[in-house]
Amino acid sequence: MTGIEARLEALERQVRESADTIAIYQLIATYGPAVDSMAVPTVRDMWVADGAYDAGGFEPFHGERVALHLYDETHQGYLAHGALHVMSLPFIILSGDTAVATNYSRVYEYNGETWDVVRAGSNRWELARTDGGWKVTTRINRLLNGEQEPMELLARGLADLPSSAR
Amino acid sequence: MTGIEARLEALERQVRESADTIAIYQLIATYGPAVDSMAVPTVRDMWVADGAYDAGGFEPFHGERVALHLYDETHQGYLAHGALHVMSLPFIILSGDTAVATNYSRVYEYNGETWDVVRAGSNRWELARTDGGWKVTTRINRLLNGEQEPMELLARGLADLPSSAR
Amino acid sequence: MTGIEARLEALERQVRESADTIAIYQLIATYGPAVDSMAVPTVRDMWVADGAYDAGGFEPFHGERVALHLYDETHQGYLAHGALHVMSLPFIILSGDTAVATNYSRVYEYNGETWDVVRAGSNRWELARTDGGWKVTTRINRLLNGEQEPMELLARGLADLPSSAR
Repeated sequence: MTGIEARLEALERQVRESADTIAIYQLIATYGPAVDSMAVPTVRDMWVADGAYDAGGFEPFHGERVALHLYDETHQGYLAHGALHVMSLPFIILSGDTAVATNYSRVYEYNGETWDVVRAGSNRWELARTDGGWKVTTRINRLLNGEQEPMELLARGLADLPSSAR
Repeated sequence: MTGIEARLEALERQVRESADTIAIYQLIATYGPAVDSMAVPTVRDMWVADGAYDAGGFEPFHGERVALHLYDETHQGYLAHGALHVMSLPFIILSGDTAVATNYSRVYEYNGETWDVVRAGSNRWELARTDGGWKVTTRINRLLNGEQEPMELLARGLADLPSSAR
Repeated sequence: MTGIEARLEALERQVRESADTIAIYQLIATYGPAVDSMAVPTVRDMWVADGAYDAGGFEPFHGERVALHLYDETHQGYLAHGALHVMSLPFIILSGDTAVATNYSRVYEYNGETWDVVRAGSNRWELARTDGGWKVTTRINRLLNGEQEPMELLARGLADLPSSAR
């Protein structure tokens, strides 16, 4: 019986790790469609109630403001022209009931003929497992404009990789 | 024995869900490489025999026409210049033997120096499990140009998210 | 007992396949953040010790040169302006302890206002399972500029798809 017990435990551990990774892919993949269609409740539900979104250049958004920033003039301007907020596949470091995902985001805006990349940045997503699934506690986003800070955000994610996955 | 039976059933359910999600990622990830290399049989096999591709602006393609549109002048022009059809990571709603995936697509075309984004749109992929794996029954694609319909396509996918995943 | 043994074996096979696919997603997702933050050891660890990176247009890099190319003038120029090396979701053919992943890469460079796509190409990643996890043995990258070779790289990956996944 020990053999079966050990195999079940190994399976349960691996299955949970794969399911957690996929759940975080899914969560991050909903961000763009949510903000580009003004799905305010969906954006709100992506974050924990007291979560934060720090996009640089101004005070980080907290709590309700995270989703309400969709009503801001900048975002409304994107949507009026036609916009895509596209997330790259993140790499994810799982640590039990928390996780960190690191990836790139790009905002494409229609200029009447082609789409310009008007924002392109690095992202650090700090996440927590909740009764309602994985949610964002803090997202940090910095434009990749040649400065050090946006590059350091990428390096910070890599520093937590187990050496076997590097 | 009940304990083992219950654990096996829980594992089988979760493993199937992860495997279905990954199989759909893989299917959608083959679309760009297939159309950009004129792999007509691969595109045909991605859809069910009577599948549809509704790209807006003209009559939807049905059945054989889905793959044969690769011979159209527009597509041939992309390939002559150099083109990438890039799919973003979709979010996926599984419902047993059917599923819906929502994501962004972008067509990049080489201008001799850089690559322009000449199409950028929202996508709804309706999928079915078949004896030959997951296949597309209908793909709807709309350019994100500031109109409502392409944004509604995104919202329609989000509406089916279980609230725990939002 | 046979029933349980067969179910465990089926689960172990499927769980390993999903875990391998996700591990390769994760490996490829670390490439951009690593090169864009000058994480030289991370890039080195992505490849096997005698691995190769063939980017076309010059001699392929081998061994230590794979990671050391980050110090080259071209790459340093990208970082000075602000750059993203973004990988699309690959499709992956697993064959036991080796695998092939096919996808697109794009390099976005900041021009002071928007980000230009200054490189866009097809990729073939040949991979091996090692004691340190999945690693790259050879990466081939070709710009999609209207020539045949970059398109053939995509077709080559598709040719190995099981027909059920096409």
